[in-house]
Amino acid sequence: MAIKNLQDLFVHTLKDIYFAEKQIVQALPKMAEKASDGELKKLFETHLEETRGHVDRLEAVFGLVNERPEGERCPAIEGIIEEAEELMGEIQDADTRDTAMTAAAQAVEHYEMARYGTLVAWAELLGHKDAARRLSETLEEEKAADAKLTKAGESKLNKQAA
Amino acid sequence: MAIKNLQDLFVHTLKDIYFAEKQIVQALPKMAEKASDGELKKLFETHLEETRGHVDRLEAVFGLVNERPEGERCPAIEGIIEEAEELMGEIQDADTRDTAMTAAAQAVEHYEMARYGTLVAWAELLGHKDAARRLSETLEEEKAADAKLTKAGESKLNKQAA
Repeated sequence: MAIKNLQDLFVHTLKDIYFAEKQIVQALPKMAEKASDGELKKLFETHLEETRGHVDRLEAVFGLVNERPEGERCPAIEGIIEEAEELMGEIQDADTRDTAMTAAAQAVEHYEMARYGTLVAWAELLGHKDAARRLSETLEEEKAADAKLTKAGESKLNKQAA
Repeated sequence: MAIKNLQDLFVHTLKDIYFAEKQIVQALPKMAEKASDGELKKLFETHLEETRGHVDRLEAVFGLVNERPEGERCPAIEGIIEEAEELMGEIQDADTRDTAMTAAAQAVEHYEMARYGTLVAWAELLGHKDAARRLSETLEEEKAADAKLTKAGESKLNKQAA
């Protein structure tokens, strides 16, 4: 699709994050399975449920702007997940692997925060008020997930250090 | 290199962000050249200088932890930059392209904030106090760059909308 204006760029970016969310739905169960710390495992499982909700919410947003839900390949999320899976496969020590997965998940959250932040600003400017509201709900959930990961990472590390 | 503990993971992640910063040094001049808005062009140029400083600072951090500065391929930054370059090449309309480049640069900043945030926490825990201090200087500069991009994006969009 040719991107001629902000509306096109908005729809393109919706498709990018829709593809990304679906990749994250695929990646999180593997991360939950590999996590040895119970709190981290639970965090990944809870975030999987949330992420499924983000996919549904994006489908609603596509509807609100009269577009068909469709993904567009997002090399950024592919790269971020590739790195996470490499580390997960490579690291034998359970504590170190948990710490690496926590950091990888935070890189995912940061990518999403960047994208949703942009999408909210553009939706508002384009007058898509309902879409902006739905997108900012997801943005807040991504921020909260990142904060929980920071906390889990710190408590895990402090336990190891003790 | 086999990652057996937090120190290894710290060094691995240093190499990842060192590779990433060097990729960003390659990408920013192209973005500055493509930017049609003077403020945005200036922002990319200033951030290029800052990024060169981050490369030097990372080299100092490697020295502080007795490691040789070395990059390790970072598929995440490759993906983020690939997306940025695709959009830069595709979009004909100058305002829309500027907006897309601003958003792409924010995705880069967010990736870096995630990585430096993690590195600072690990450096502190590992007792690398000087490294932690240097890394948090860069973290603050990345946050500031992101905030400037948000402001530039908003003012650009508001001008277009007016």
